[in-house]
Amino acid sequence: MNLHDLIRELREPTGGKIVLLVADGLGGLPLLLGGKTELETARTPHLDTLACEGVCGLSLPVLPGITPGSGPGHLGLFGYDPLQYRIGRGVLEALGINFQVTPRDVAIRGNFCTVDADGLITDRRAGRPSTERCIAMCQKLAAIRVPGVEVFVEPVREHRFVLVLRGDGLGDRVNDTDPQATGVKPLPAAGEDDASQRTAEAANQFLAEAARVLKDDAPTNMATLRGFARYPQIATMQDIYGLKSTAIAVYPMYKGLARLVGMDIADAGSTLSDQVATLQKVWPQYDFFFMHYKYTDSTGEDGNFAAKVEKIEQLDAVIPQIRDLNPDVLIVTGDHSTPSKLKSHSWHPVPVVLWAKSCRSDGFSKFSESQCRTGGLGQFQAMYLMSLAMAHAGRFGKYGA
Amino acid sequence: MNLHDLIRELREPTGGKIVLLVADGLGGLPLLLGGKTELETARTPHLDTLACEGVCGLSLPVLPGITPGSGPGHLGLFGYDPLQYRIGRGVLEALGINFQVTPRDVAIRGNFCTVDADGLITDRRAGRPSTERCIAMCQKLAAIRVPGVEVFVEPVREHRFVLVLRGDGLGDRVNDTDPQATGVKPLPAAGEDDASQRTAEAANQFLAEAARVLKDDAPTNMATLRGFARYPQIATMQDIYGLKSTAIAVYPMYKGLARLVGMDIADAGSTLSDQVATLQKVWPQYDFFFMHYKYTDSTGEDGNFAAKVEKIEQLDAVIPQIRDLNPDVLIVTGDHSTPSKLKSHSWHPVPVVLWAKSCRSDGFSKFSESQCRTGGLGQFQAMYLMSLAMAHAGRFGKYGA
Repeated sequence: MNLHDLIRELREPTGGKIVLLVADGLGGLPLLLGGKTELETARTPHLDTLACEGVCGLSLPVLPGITPGSGPGHLGLFGYDPLQYRIGRGVLEALGINFQVTPRDVAIRGNFCTVDADGLITDRRAGRPSTERCIAMCQKLAAIRVPGVEVFVEPVREHRFVLVLRGDGLGDRVNDTDPQATGVKPLPAAGEDDASQRTAEAANQFLAEAARVLKDDAPTNMATLRGFARYPQIATMQDIYGLKSTAIAVYPMYKGLARLVGMDIADAGSTLSDQVATLQKVWPQYDFFFMHYKYTDSTGEDGNFAAKVEKIEQLDAVIPQIRDLNPDVLIVTGDHSTPSKLKSHSWHPVPVVLWAKSCRSDGFSKFSESQCRTGGLGQFQAMYLMSLAMAHAGRFGKYGA
Repeated sequence: MNLHDLIRELREPTGGKIVLLVADGLGGLPLLLGGKTELETARTPHLDTLACEGVCGLSLPVLPGITPGSGPGHLGLFGYDPLQYRIGRGVLEALGINFQVTPRDVAIRGNFCTVDADGLITDRRAGRPSTERCIAMCQKLAAIRVPGVEVFVEPVREHRFVLVLRGDGLGDRVNDTDPQATGVKPLPAAGEDDASQRTAEAANQFLAEAARVLKDDAPTNMATLRGFARYPQIATMQDIYGLKSTAIAVYPMYKGLARLVGMDIADAGSTLSDQVATLQKVWPQYDFFFMHYKYTDSTGEDGNFAAKVEKIEQLDAVIPQIRDLNPDVLIVTGDHSTPSKLKSHSWHPVPVVLWAKSCRSDGFSKFSESQCRTGGLGQFQAMYLMSLAMAHAGRFGKYGA
């Protein structure tokens, strides 16, 4: 039986309020074997109280050994099997710049590149132009018209932009035109089915025009396209869980991921204290609150152990304000690990604490990877976390008589 | 590969004896966050010895966050995926009153209700009549004849009864006739396929006769039907495991669940010491013994923490008599948790101890939820417990060369 069908069958029409606080990339590693992780180094009295009163564990974002991107990491936390629901690169790129993708869109990641007089690629990233130049070039491309589709071109940064083709019956089974090599021409786009062939033809027309429009703009005198992706058909959180949900996130990517599963997007400001103020403001209106904290990931990506420790401590400091709202279920976890030692996302299981009155408390002294290892939640796939939240919020009936 | 096919492939023709002692609803919660559960409070020297010598863990009856009824809870313990094998409400209700459902039956839960002169329902439970009145009304209904099917009507209690339609080619995809509302007429039964349409027509004929027979018996002057269910097609324990199995249970529901998977039903008496005496008596004849103890669940459902503690202690006291029989594998667990704090079944993982000479002993000091959390069995789906029992009983060969 499908997990979402089971949830639809068991869910109650009412129940408690759930806060899911995601510290992006929370899990870490010690710099030296046997040392302490970032979370273990940080002074986190409020998280430690949660780990004492609540129930802890380690979550696997996808499967053992699999490092997720932000898309699968968050889909798992929202209770969607990240192996079943895939978000294409084009759509993620569009979400990341706050472009509101619609079901009629195919979103595509574009790269400015340099071609020689014969049209052979000499630099796949066009010498990494400034973002200002990227913006100017995108304005030129945005003027291109393709019959039968609407065209949107939005800058990202440096050589990167987003192309969105909007129209009816467009498929996304289209190859990348980036040949991943220099000294060769960009590949023509081709579709694997009729709908995708329509997209490919529109893309080829766009690229032919782009070559014309950009021809005097070397090194940004051509573009390649990658990651053709339609907006995935995903049942909303409302439909699955019956939860009125809102996202309190600062970065566009996470707002976009939340919008993808049907959450309302709160005006969250730009700082953690703005986010907490927003949470307080919208508290009466929702059942489920997804709060996203970016800096545990970005400091990890920077390889800055001390900064990640500091960001964890800053997050810890707002826990009392969240608890003051009396959530029925408060979960703190990450969408994946980002050990500063590795300067990247990783596959290591992610510490989780779930606090609710119906907890079998672990009584831990510290919220840490090493204590979470023996927590009452065990080691589990992230996609089951929402079911636990629903149960503790009194939102599930009994399965079978 | 299907789990049961794997088991059939690996099983040996002979091996040791397995005792599965199910303390219904065993898992609990502390009354206050951070306190002790019922099991942790109970004085259980014999279970503690098992937890020291044996291997412990926490079992998930279905999936994280899912609270099972008795049916799915026991199917899981018997090694059947409770999401794949579903037992309809009608069948469970029939099992609960010791009605021997056959593969030709559709079992249905009936409710006496009150209707006004226009046939509109005024009370869906007929003012909760006495069980005596329920018995008398069922005698009237039992006289109804429907062409082509045999009709059985058996009282449960108050407004509840069981209707069984026995015949060839009867389906169970039939809607409830209970409209779940007052001021409206009962719904007609309709089948989703030909076989179910035959059942629906028989049910409608039965209900038309019931209206006539009961018309002067207000408030019990009509009936509604719910949970149409055929006896599920389930391979027996003998077929899957090659085990000669018997159930030593006091309550009809659990005898019925055991019969469903092909166990013999021992005459178990009515007390725990009767059950132990039965176990001793039938010991030579079987490979697998399912012993069911109800009172850890019923005291939990009553919200009586102290009584649940006492019932656990009473169960502990018979462990030596069971061990005296020298079982090769002795498992003590529950089919789900029933924390007296919640007065209901719950989703919390269930403590398990498995004792066998081939154990990697956990060396625990106490059989408790908190120690089981770090046991050698980890946290696992209940449906795998039987495979562990088979292995420790020397009943599994090697998979692959």
